[in-house]
Amino acid sequence: MIGREKIAEEFRLIQDHICSELERIDGKSHFIEDLWKREEGGGGRTRILSHGEIIEKGGVAFSEVYGPVSEVMRSQLGLNGKEFYATGVSIVLHAHHPRIPIIHMNIRYFELDSGEYWFGGGIDLTPHYVDEELASSFHEKLKKVCDRFEEGSFERFTDWAHRYFFNSHRKESRGVGGIFFDHLSEKESVSKVDIFSFCLELGNLFPIAYQEQVEAGKNLPVLENEIFWRNIRRGRYVEFNLVYDKGTKFGLLSGGRVESILMSLPHSAGWEYNFQPLPGSEEDKTLRLLREKKFWIG
Amino acid sequence: MIGREKIAEEFRLIQDHICSELERIDGKSHFIEDLWKREEGGGGRTRILSHGEIIEKGGVAFSEVYGPVSEVMRSQLGLNGKEFYATGVSIVLHAHHPRIPIIHMNIRYFELDSGEYWFGGGIDLTPHYVDEELASSFHEKLKKVCDRFEEGSFERFTDWAHRYFFNSHRKESRGVGGIFFDHLSEKESVSKVDIFSFCLELGNLFPIAYQEQVEAGKNLPVLENEIFWRNIRRGRYVEFNLVYDKGTKFGLLSGGRVESILMSLPHSAGWEYNFQPLPGSEEDKTLRLLREKKFWIG
Repeated sequence: MIGREKIAEEFRLIQDHICSELERIDGKSHFIEDLWKREEGGGGRTRILSHGEIIEKGGVAFSEVYGPVSEVMRSQLGLNGKEFYATGVSIVLHAHHPRIPIIHMNIRYFELDSGEYWFGGGIDLTPHYVDEELASSFHEKLKKVCDRFEEGSFERFTDWAHRYFFNSHRKESRGVGGIFFDHLSEKESVSKVDIFSFCLELGNLFPIAYQEQVEAGKNLPVLENEIFWRNIRRGRYVEFNLVYDKGTKFGLLSGGRVESILMSLPHSAGWEYNFQPLPGSEEDKTLRLLREKKFWIG
Repeated sequence: MIGREKIAEEFRLIQDHICSELERIDGKSHFIEDLWKREEGGGGRTRILSHGEIIEKGGVAFSEVYGPVSEVMRSQLGLNGKEFYATGVSIVLHAHHPRIPIIHMNIRYFELDSGEYWFGGGIDLTPHYVDEELASSFHEKLKKVCDRFEEGSFERFTDWAHRYFFNSHRKESRGVGGIFFDHLSEKESVSKVDIFSFCLELGNLFPIAYQEQVEAGKNLPVLENEIFWRNIRRGRYVEFNLVYDKGTKFGLLSGGRVESILMSLPHSAGWEYNFQPLPGSEEDKTLRLLREKKFWIG
């Protein structure tokens, strides 16, 4: 049986690998690292790349936290148990360029003192301007990894992502989706090691998938109104993270480190009252696509 | 007994008065009005002043909504009853100038079919840079109105504001506070009319209190790092509104109009990872004041 020490160790290595790949993709800036401790148990290493050539603000965080399940965790997060253990890697990258999407990845492992455990995670893409071919290509890469893991898992996880990464109040998806999964534990056909390997494969896929998006967007010309629109879209990203995101909620309620939890928020964002794109514009097309449910492939 | 039609009518007049005063204070831009209807009952008139001389983005909204208490309102807002009625005026103003505070006001009336009713509201000030004299002067104005309403109410309501307008995850106040109250209904010493008049007096005070802040700040020179800091502070304002604010939560959960509810969010805001002001700087002083509990007068 694979133990939590091994899982945390491999997650640290995934963080290392992703940071070195992202530095290569950025080509200019380097990550700075903050080590932090959690009073009730555990801590983390938060790595931030700021004001790079490509990446305006990017965070790649590893954390390993444990301790008593507090009253607020019990009532608001529904955790049953006395002691918990959680480790994971979380990433959000905001590029300068409006044609490079925001990207997010998370893989996590959770354990209770009862012996109950599960894995969760996801990868999703939030283009400021939706490019359907790039959205499909992103999903195809995810599908390959899912297909190696378990038949039908891509369809389940991409559907889950569409339901999860959704700004209900605006009736629009945060982005073009990707995959999301939670509470995965072993069953007849899938072992704990299988699930763990699947998470690691996602970690390895992440920089490859991001690089494709960067290469496609980085040399396109930028108009001023595209920066305005990028900031509007970033504002919606902020809305999702602060209103709905479970990772953010878990972090804030479990006494995590605020700056690490909120590293997902962009360097700049904006809210223009009731902004309506011109009918037929690219912005309008993006909004319409985010309001449809779309699986992008298959 | 004063009825809800009369309350809504006076609230509309308060909205008119405040809008005309704010146009005078701004001196350049005018409010645009959006009328909207709520599918389940009621609607509102949202007024926005954008890109003015003083005000970058300001909203003054009246709404009157009613209908069945939905399952989500029951479970997440704790409303007991079959039918509800709610009317109110909400204001948030973001000025361009970093030395002019963000200001918020809300007065509201709520009724259930059981006959139960209450008033709620508040005014609070969020300077990007805390000026202690201006914070005190603001509180003194509120105290005068509270003292005319009920002895001891200022102390209760300003303490309530300190608890309410608080970003728990950052352990800092949203701003210098003001007053907050909820669930006020008649009792031996205070009639329904008294509470209603108190709400109207707050509405009348609002433009006077704001004008003082504007006059004090608008001619001060602006440095680039002050704009950066203003945007950081605005980011914390966004955090409060999306994570904690009950009006926002009620609006989103009761099927209100999204653009009216989120009119409180600024034209631009920013998050810089783990920004720490220079010790002894004005930004540092502001942060320290926001981390203390302070009543500003008395």
